[in-house]
Amino acid sequence: MSQLNPLKVGLLGFGVVGSGTWNVLTRNAEEIARRAGRHIEIVRIATRTPAKAINVVGAAVPVDNDLMTVVNDPDIDIVVELIGGTTLAKELVLKAIENGKHVVTANKALLAMHGNEIFAAASNKKVIVAFEAAVAGGIPIIKSVREGLTANRIQWLAGIINGTTNFILTEMREKGLPFADVLKKAQELGYAEADPTFDIEGVDAAHKLAILASIAFGIPVQFDKVYVEGISHLAQEDVVAADRLGYRIKLLGLAIRREKGIELRVHPCLVPKNKLIANVEGAMNAVVVKGDAIGETLYYGAGAGSEPTASAVVADLVDVTRLHTADPENRVPHLAFQADALADYPILPIEEVISSYYLRLGVEDRPGVMADIAKVLASHQISISSMIQDNKGENQASIIFLTHNAKEGDVLAAIKQIEGLDFVRSAITHLRMENLS
Amino acid sequence: MSQLNPLKVGLLGFGVVGSGTWNVLTRNAEEIARRAGRHIEIVRIATRTPAKAINVVGAAVPVDNDLMTVVNDPDIDIVVELIGGTTLAKELVLKAIENGKHVVTANKALLAMHGNEIFAAASNKKVIVAFEAAVAGGIPIIKSVREGLTANRIQWLAGIINGTTNFILTEMREKGLPFADVLKKAQELGYAEADPTFDIEGVDAAHKLAILASIAFGIPVQFDKVYVEGISHLAQEDVVAADRLGYRIKLLGLAIRREKGIELRVHPCLVPKNKLIANVEGAMNAVVVKGDAIGETLYYGAGAGSEPTASAVVADLVDVTRLHTADPENRVPHLAFQADALADYPILPIEEVISSYYLRLGVEDRPGVMADIAKVLASHQISISSMIQDNKGENQASIIFLTHNAKEGDVLAAIKQIEGLDFVRSAITHLRMENLS
Repeated sequence: MSQLNPLKVGLLGFGVVGSGTWNVLTRNAEEIARRAGRHIEIVRIATRTPAKAINVVGAAVPVDNDLMTVVNDPDIDIVVELIGGTTLAKELVLKAIENGKHVVTANKALLAMHGNEIFAAASNKKVIVAFEAAVAGGIPIIKSVREGLTANRIQWLAGIINGTTNFILTEMREKGLPFADVLKKAQELGYAEADPTFDIEGVDAAHKLAILASIAFGIPVQFDKVYVEGISHLAQEDVVAADRLGYRIKLLGLAIRREKGIELRVHPCLVPKNKLIANVEGAMNAVVVKGDAIGETLYYGAGAGSEPTASAVVADLVDVTRLHTADPENRVPHLAFQADALADYPILPIEEVISSYYLRLGVEDRPGVMADIAKVLASHQISISSMIQDNKGENQASIIFLTHNAKEGDVLAAIKQIEGLDFVRSAITHLRMENLS
Repeated sequence: MSQLNPLKVGLLGFGVVGSGTWNVLTRNAEEIARRAGRHIEIVRIATRTPAKAINVVGAAVPVDNDLMTVVNDPDIDIVVELIGGTTLAKELVLKAIENGKHVVTANKALLAMHGNEIFAAASNKKVIVAFEAAVAGGIPIIKSVREGLTANRIQWLAGIINGTTNFILTEMREKGLPFADVLKKAQELGYAEADPTFDIEGVDAAHKLAILASIAFGIPVQFDKVYVEGISHLAQEDVVAADRLGYRIKLLGLAIRREKGIELRVHPCLVPKNKLIANVEGAMNAVVVKGDAIGETLYYGAGAGSEPTASAVVADLVDVTRLHTADPENRVPHLAFQADALADYPILPIEEVISSYYLRLGVEDRPGVMADIAKVLASHQISISSMIQDNKGENQASIIFLTHNAKEGDVLAAIKQIEGLDFVRSAITHLRMENLS
């Protein structure tokens, strides 16, 4: 093997992913060097809780709690940022770039909110910011979209990119339990944080979607324009009804190219059971990407966890090892497209989104109800693909309509009008459906 | 966008993939240039049937039937070899390398049989031979394993890497038809060649498996050591029985790391229905890769066809565009591992393979049969996980045994002994089972 000097890494953060990165780099050092052609060594660690790191690392590597000294250490080639958050992490990453260091990060929130600024700074200093671990954990989805599908005009992508919510949805369906009970269980198992808001309200998925959409379509990262709806309002009744109709409910991140612009949305979604992605269960992640040449492709794996995420961090380290001596002009652009070739496609507001819909409502069980609702839907250019009515006793019924493709704005207007009809007994639950074909 | 000169490509072959490559490069020229930072232009085409190519290309590019002039043209940076076969293709590829040109090829047979020689020649001349299209069509599986999973010690991989056989197996199960009828239909639909031997006997899958195993484990390409068994002997009865037992039969390419060496095998295999790969239907491909850090990952998409395969060819062209100015020492090694760091792990003979088994046999229906068979299995260290007996009338019964993990050599010896028992009425059908976990 060639006798190049080892690449020197400074590690910021020694939590779940940081310790996983240490473990993988240590355990597989030889296997990795056989691939990379040189050794990759963590030469310095900074973390707010050094004792924990020292416990694992021993005396092999200096560990302290001063994050900025790692970023300023002239001996370090690459800084790996695994502390999370968007304030200190941003400061550290920008300083590392300013110091001419390459950066590897797993921080989706940071890139979703400040990615454009960070990538511009990196291009300016001709350094690489690599972020495979920021989306879908270990799955090489950034590499696949950015380098594997370069021949394609990408038409859409759809991803299960948050393991916590997929675990909750799987449990709700398999165990027949309501959302609140399953969330509690997920927290006990460590699949959900004590404050689960970012996961269950779709914010984490939206961070990742903003990054994926950027590299798929060649647009800036636009987290603030993603429509976000979580799963906390989801009724067990709808999970059961979806199953009966041949669908699974998944929290999807969707980025879809339309004639007038791009749809960016995160929300629970009915997906036909015969689609592979509908069968991705538990805390696993998967992303489907549709390109005009390749058709549909799917990428599946663990979207979180210590070593799966570390797998992506280390893959990025190997990539940087290979590319850092290359002419910056010929490197893979951070956001897949050349920085001066990004497009300003408009992001469509949710009212302009096109989808088919699942509408459920409680009504008084009397003749004429169906006809009146159908009339309202038709008046908003919404056509019905199927309908089920369940009598609930005491003169009450539950009706589910499935629609063909319609514009969300029209659907919202129709819902408002239907909710005003005198026989309607409940607010209307509306869920979007995607056939993903 | 930067004003680099276009990269000049010479195209050898204008069949299904060649014409697809032309179409994709032409249609998506701007999208591709936005990514690659320069245009990629086919400047010369050679094919044995120029009239067909001229019909598509018109006067835009010179087309002739002299393949060697493309390889010798000093204006051409990259040669794309899409003529197939292993004799002329080998000569052309080696000549292109000798002339200092990079090569992109979709030719799995060529690489399976002569890959080691070709990659050595390329390393020697410091040129790139890219071959994403050679395995699983458009799915970026070479890139994912070679670059996306570099952190991992890969434990095993399992792939549906031949679309023809997966189409046939899907039809046998869904339509309840025997192999011969479905093959005829596949030939009519163009999913199978007039001479389907390479596909149905597993040879095409074995070509791809030899390449995948090499980049997964860092071993030379060893097609001649792959155990190969096709699907032409598969009985409809076993497809039905597998379904009843909770399995699907798939033709898998399996590469498994064991303590004593590597298993390389292609054969029909029972896979539990709840595994994602068991639900890959029709002509689609999928590969599951298990790494020690990432766990299980799966890659799914079209494994053949004009534009899906062209998608991989063009992705390789973009990669070459990016890497051709890079220091050869820092490029991604052809076979994922540095050429001087390949391992000589032994490839295990089929008798040493470890698997669980499905054994079906016809017997005379009388007391003691089960006990006698179980006794033989036990004497060969084979333990039974479950058993089903179906009475067939006229004093005949069909028995299916599922075993726990056993060594193939022991199973073959037990089968021979059981076939000698006086109540056994048929040869024993034995199929391997993989839980893929």
